[in-house]
Amino acid sequence: MTTQIPVLEKIHSANDRIAAANRAILDGAGAYSLNFMASPGAGKTSLVEQTVTRLKGHARVGMINGDIATSLDAERAQNAGAAAVQINTGGDCHLDAVMLSSALNELDLTRIDLLIVENVGNLICPANWVLGTHKNVLIASVPEGADKPYKYPGIYRGVDVLIINKIDLLPYVPFDMEYFKRGVEILNPGVQTFALSCRTGEGIDAWIDWLTEQIATV
Amino acid sequence: MTTQIPVLEKIHSANDRIAAANRAILDGAGAYSLNFMASPGAGKTSLVEQTVTRLKGHARVGMINGDIATSLDAERAQNAGAAAVQINTGGDCHLDAVMLSSALNELDLTRIDLLIVENVGNLICPANWVLGTHKNVLIASVPEGADKPYKYPGIYRGVDVLIINKIDLLPYVPFDMEYFKRGVEILNPGVQTFALSCRTGEGIDAWIDWLTEQIATV
Repeated sequence: MTTQIPVLEKIHSANDRIAAANRAILDGAGAYSLNFMASPGAGKTSLVEQTVTRLKGHARVGMINGDIATSLDAERAQNAGAAAVQINTGGDCHLDAVMLSSALNELDLTRIDLLIVENVGNLICPANWVLGTHKNVLIASVPEGADKPYKYPGIYRGVDVLIINKIDLLPYVPFDMEYFKRGVEILNPGVQTFALSCRTGEGIDAWIDWLTEQIATV
Repeated sequence: MTTQIPVLEKIHSANDRIAAANRAILDGAGAYSLNFMASPGAGKTSLVEQTVTRLKGHARVGMINGDIATSLDAERAQNAGAAAVQINTGGDCHLDAVMLSSALNELDLTRIDLLIVENVGNLICPANWVLGTHKNVLIASVPEGADKPYKYPGIYRGVDVLIINKIDLLPYVPFDMEYFKRGVEILNPGVQTFALSCRTGEGIDAWIDWLTEQIATV
């Protein structure tokens, strides 16, 4: 009897090993870490900016930004006060544990309490690659529409935290919150959820309170 | 001297051959075809609905919908009056020419004047796979933010038509139209562009007029 191991499985298991090593490094340095995933334009960088600004004086934030091109997001994070490293994937549609491993070498993690990894804007591919961060965070946004959990179940199923951003736009777009939450509940029952607006600041307090508790656990 | 042909290049050249065959089938049947690409929630299906509704009595529309899961979008297209076929990619992040080829077999193309292929919601991977359609259409949307051409240059560079959807939200979100258009112009000078709102109907006339002319060319 022979056992077949598909190539993709081998690649994923190598990724998982490097992710575990990343986690050990982060734990060793006492840096709590989040992997921000979302569609393009859902507000990942805006939430980084809000988080850095609100934690100023309480926690030192580092940011690793994955993008196909440009360093626009890393610059925004730096302007908000974070230590930031840019990974340009050069076309790759997601970050993986190897990319994070390289980027970790470029930050002094002992001077960071919270590390936010901003993944490539994509609701599909990032879901298949663990990085080694403590929590996976999905940022949904109201104008994307309420059917997204049903259409992108993989990423909704796999996350630890769900942010519903741009709630200030609820009066201007058709978004059935009950239908959205029903879809989330089927895929990821009881997932920690925050509804907020990075633009108006509504709902940010609850996010920062929860995050502050989390940071203290590492 | 040896010549190395990377595996990926071989896969892409096989895809290109099948795409050419798809185009020949579409041309033979007299069906003009569009590949709709966009972020999740930018309004691909809403534009299909508007297009089907506005062309009723003038052109028969078929729709092939690619999604990771569910047939929600194909149902919306059918409800609007299109002949629709669903492709569930089962996790794949883009359509390719083989998937389109299979789907073409399920439609009576001689009864279709316009075939809209709705790709998977993703600003990265679909850009690398031609399908054989007559034009590639990118649907951007105002709430995604004006930096998207700079951050996702691959897809902005490769398209024939750019739709800027959800212009009804311009008063409620920060969106610098000049900055956006400058980015587009660098990557894709003179690209055919339509600014519109599928929700209010603003700007749809110009799109339908252009499309009607295009359909007549096949």
